[in-house]
Amino acid sequence: MGENINPRLAEVMSALVRHLHGFAKEVQLTQDEWDLAIAFLTRTGQICSEERQEFILLSDTLGFSMLVDAINNRRPSGATENTVFGPFHVDGAPVRQMGDCISLDGKGDSCLFEGRVLDLHGEPIENACVDVWSDNSEGFYDVQQPDIQPKWNNRGRFVTGTDGVYRFIGIKPVSYPIPDDGPVGQMLGHLGRHPYRPAHMHFLVTAPGFKKIVTHTFVGDDPYLASDTVFGVKETLIAPFEHVRGETEWRSPFDFVMVPEERSS
Amino acid sequence: MGENINPRLAEVMSALVRHLHGFAKEVQLTQDEWDLAIAFLTRTGQICSEERQEFILLSDTLGFSMLVDAINNRRPSGATENTVFGPFHVDGAPVRQMGDCISLDGKGDSCLFEGRVLDLHGEPIENACVDVWSDNSEGFYDVQQPDIQPKWNNRGRFVTGTDGVYRFIGIKPVSYPIPDDGPVGQMLGHLGRHPYRPAHMHFLVTAPGFKKIVTHTFVGDDPYLASDTVFGVKETLIAPFEHVRGETEWRSPFDFVMVPEERSS
Repeated sequence: MGENINPRLAEVMSALVRHLHGFAKEVQLTQDEWDLAIAFLTRTGQICSEERQEFILLSDTLGFSMLVDAINNRRPSGATENTVFGPFHVDGAPVRQMGDCISLDGKGDSCLFEGRVLDLHGEPIENACVDVWSDNSEGFYDVQQPDIQPKWNNRGRFVTGTDGVYRFIGIKPVSYPIPDDGPVGQMLGHLGRHPYRPAHMHFLVTAPGFKKIVTHTFVGDDPYLASDTVFGVKETLIAPFEHVRGETEWRSPFDFVMVPEERSS
Repeated sequence: MGENINPRLAEVMSALVRHLHGFAKEVQLTQDEWDLAIAFLTRTGQICSEERQEFILLSDTLGFSMLVDAINNRRPSGATENTVFGPFHVDGAPVRQMGDCISLDGKGDSCLFEGRVLDLHGEPIENACVDVWSDNSEGFYDVQQPDIQPKWNNRGRFVTGTDGVYRFIGIKPVSYPIPDDGPVGQMLGHLGRHPYRPAHMHFLVTAPGFKKIVTHTFVGDDPYLASDTVFGVKETLIAPFEHVRGETEWRSPFDFVMVPEERSS
């Protein structure tokens, strides 16, 4: 490397090259395997589009995304843990009234999601924005079916008041396969792995003065909880889903606990 | 991973994941750096085409291709060493008469390349095919300039007789940059590295019963010999280029020594 280059870049690239070379030496990588790897990476890049990010899928399915998240989001005990962001978030979902329903296609088991956004002392956080999104009852996000699902189906933003409470009606999410008709799906097939994610509701919780939370809550009886294809499940994120007889069929209570932002001094 | 999968695939993927995770932990990879990496890999895939293979360039410039070649081509002392194949070989170059000229554009310093194809005992090998290719005097291969250079410019195949001799006229090759207008070129720029390869003539030598040799001969006075951007230089591949007063301006003698193919028993 030359002189006067970014020292962090030099550090990262040196380590990357060292680890990649260590890998090739350890497994005594053959020329044919190298050819396969080049072809795989090329196909992975070429299937990427505005709507599809196969390299993120690759990172996710190798557990790399969760590792990077863990490295960058160490939190004190009691704070809500992060998990993968995933490729299906859309900026600018409608801000809805507390208690509104986000399911616009009328399908699926209705479920009341409610709880509070709290700080580490258990005090409610006002003006927290709870941005939520999930698949529909057939396992697809609205952006995957723009011609079938209403725009913003199963998405919405909710802003807390002084009590820190959020509340909305959605559906009990269902498990679904990640897009598996591309190179990553082929890889999973060769590895004898299924492409499923256990059912989950996505949450992006932000509030002034606090670190954002990027997480899901998981449905506890899902058969894929122990084998999430992107390794996103954490014990603390498995939420109650209670069968209720009320306005909705299910109720899932869950509180979010936020950590103050670090001040740059 | 599932059961009943290819054990070699399981071995390679386990090691890959372990080394990639080890890398991220060691450098404490940030989310922003991960974002950059995803974007870089995506651009690298998307620039690939029939004429361009940016992932091979990436592998080459990280020294990975040379490492894989070294792992797979351990040879006894005295045998000709391999180096990178590179992206510019074309199958099916014209078979020419011994002594023919491969330079069809009339540019550059003419050079006689000659020598013998030998076995480890110094005996000549008959029916060895010496497939050669180089850039033109402006640093471009014919396939990079299909509208400017004659087809098969600076390419040809020569088949040895009982004396094992090969002989052809080409040009004294010149150093050139690898294609550096894409992601890999940007990476080299950020790393303070130049994109140049020292001047070289490519050789692919095959013969019945012997392992193929994929190599170059390098021009010894090239300023980039110590900093080949793809790490392809080996001491034993630096060839004499003698200034002569004859049919050509230069002469480069070089013998190739082949290793017998392993018999599968």
